[in-house]
Amino acid sequence: MKVTLNRSAFLEELATVQRAISGKTTIPILTGVKIKLTENGLTLTGSNADISIETFLSVNDEKANMLIESTGSIVLQARFFNDIIRKLPEDTLTLELGDNQQVIISSGKALFNVNGLNADNYPHLPVINQDQAFKLPARILNKLVNETVFAVSLQENRPILTGLHMILKDNQLLAVATDSHRLSQRVISVEGENQDFDVVIPGKSLQELSKTIKDEEELVSISMMDNQVLFKTENTLFYSRLLEGNYPDTNRLIPTSFNTEITFSVPELLSAIDRASLLSHEGRNNIVRLKIDSENVMIYGNSPEIGNVEEKLSYLSVTGDPIEISFNPDYMKDSLKSFGPIDIKINFISPIRPFTLQPADGDVDFIQLITPVRTN
Amino acid sequence: MKVTLNRSAFLEELATVQRAISGKTTIPILTGVKIKLTENGLTLTGSNADISIETFLSVNDEKANMLIESTGSIVLQARFFNDIIRKLPEDTLTLELGDNQQVIISSGKALFNVNGLNADNYPHLPVINQDQAFKLPARILNKLVNETVFAVSLQENRPILTGLHMILKDNQLLAVATDSHRLSQRVISVEGENQDFDVVIPGKSLQELSKTIKDEEELVSISMMDNQVLFKTENTLFYSRLLEGNYPDTNRLIPTSFNTEITFSVPELLSAIDRASLLSHEGRNNIVRLKIDSENVMIYGNSPEIGNVEEKLSYLSVTGDPIEISFNPDYMKDSLKSFGPIDIKINFISPIRPFTLQPADGDVDFIQLITPVRTN
Repeated sequence: MKVTLNRSAFLEELATVQRAISGKTTIPILTGVKIKLTENGLTLTGSNADISIETFLSVNDEKANMLIESTGSIVLQARFFNDIIRKLPEDTLTLELGDNQQVIISSGKALFNVNGLNADNYPHLPVINQDQAFKLPARILNKLVNETVFAVSLQENRPILTGLHMILKDNQLLAVATDSHRLSQRVISVEGENQDFDVVIPGKSLQELSKTIKDEEELVSISMMDNQVLFKTENTLFYSRLLEGNYPDTNRLIPTSFNTEITFSVPELLSAIDRASLLSHEGRNNIVRLKIDSENVMIYGNSPEIGNVEEKLSYLSVTGDPIEISFNPDYMKDSLKSFGPIDIKINFISPIRPFTLQPADGDVDFIQLITPVRTN
Repeated sequence: MKVTLNRSAFLEELATVQRAISGKTTIPILTGVKIKLTENGLTLTGSNADISIETFLSVNDEKANMLIESTGSIVLQARFFNDIIRKLPEDTLTLELGDNQQVIISSGKALFNVNGLNADNYPHLPVINQDQAFKLPARILNKLVNETVFAVSLQENRPILTGLHMILKDNQLLAVATDSHRLSQRVISVEGENQDFDVVIPGKSLQELSKTIKDEEELVSISMMDNQVLFKTENTLFYSRLLEGNYPDTNRLIPTSFNTEITFSVPELLSAIDRASLLSHEGRNNIVRLKIDSENVMIYGNSPEIGNVEEKLSYLSVTGDPIEISFNPDYMKDSLKSFGPIDIKINFISPIRPFTLQPADGDVDFIQLITPVRTN
């Protein structure tokens, strides 16, 4: 195995597969990056218990400027390898497999001799039938993930809630996440002849996915089998395990009739909540209080030690009953951020029932739920 | 006490005094910032066991746009206060002292009520006679500090070595720091009629000082008394305690005759040392090896587990005996960084004697010493 190529192009591939590599794995070879050189180009692989990422750099890629002298494969310690490549003196580097699984990395006058591991011992990635792939532009997939994944549970006591529930049925793609205190659900219409599915994908995997697929113009092919999902773009394969078990029926949680409706501009509400939460974070309960009456809409935050804050909120419209309701401002902030700088409506039933947040533009099928905190 | 002023101008002052405020103090009032309003302007004070910083914002400062309605003083929790000011909605804010040491902070429609502490209980800063002040441009003071302070000891077993030794004698200002493994000494000539001094200033204080005095065009007045030093600019007072005890005589440590001299360009040597240290950091000893012989100048780094690196170094000139010497690459990196992108000469006596680094330009009185690591 011997190849000479552009350092920046190589570093970019390395950074991608490194997302899947953890220093804490119990399988030593998985702390490494697998490098495989064929006549067609260079394949890099990184993997951990949850996800695996494989990238391909083609010999025809102009910016890689690749000269392949001989093929082969090896596994190198990811952490050092990345540091070494990053600090090499020239724009070009040469990788050469020598004796005893040693790799010679050279660039300018710098010469590294690094111990590798036999690539034959690297685990095989799952084989997934890609005939029935469901295709989605990266831009739409990333948006769907970012609108919902923040609401997955971070607690392992109900593992199924650490995942995003994704259902495709009759070309309606639904994504929903809940940690049982709040919920975010987004539905989009898709085109083409697609086979229905119903899976739960770990939230962490999807967060890595949306960092991995940065080119939003790409088309992502999504293929599934029993316990794995594959997201594929032109040069990247992203595998994630699926979560097993039944996801709770979230549909019944979403209320449909309300007593109060108020419309806000998200950036204005967000900065007011942010201010109110400065003091609530120091209080025992971390709650802020919203009060809607016939005269004003007010937000209150309080910390017995530090002091208190109140602010008269700007809103676009309000209808229905007066209400006074307390909630965790961090849930509200997460929710508002996921909407982006739009107008939203918030609907309340009572101070003890979950309230909903939705885009004011009724054509967008996107709803969030936050459970209030009962106070005396 | 009531004042309305520009938020950014106020935040800048707050950030400066906050450098002296620690959340970990055993004196509760020192977790606060003292605010004092007179007819002339606003004074802020922050303090900890080592340093105190006082800033003054004049009522005549145009960008502060200050309107003073009544004078007074209060101490507010620094951490919250800063967060609150930073997140206020408008460009202008009003501070007003109400009943029970409560301060009302208002901006736009946001209204904070924050508990304060009586400013009479805030410790007094030292009174220092400023008649004999020694004056130095901030640019020169900061450079002197940055060229030497990295070499102070971080270990508390010899407290005196955690300070920078500064001596003014016959208008020669000498600064020297050593942690007993390496040493950095800089001498500059100053002008005017100055009284001699010989003090040891905590390294940490000086690092904060050079972050505090950012305007390099300012003139710094330095005044001392038994156990305190004051650095004063137009609107900022920076106090530091002095270290007590005798600083060791470092002059005798600096060798004057050598057997090998080599000249390098700092940026080239630094990047090669950086590469060699990638592997040495994983080794048991963290050493790299430099080998100068009649043919080549080579650097070697090694980690039994990961591999090894070698690089033929570019140099400007070399004279004297061949030598092979091992040293801690981190000391070398710190040293090289402090020189900046110039040419330096390194002089060796033998593999077991400290070697010196100096600017190749002999007019600059700046010398560093690194003790090698003995290997078998």
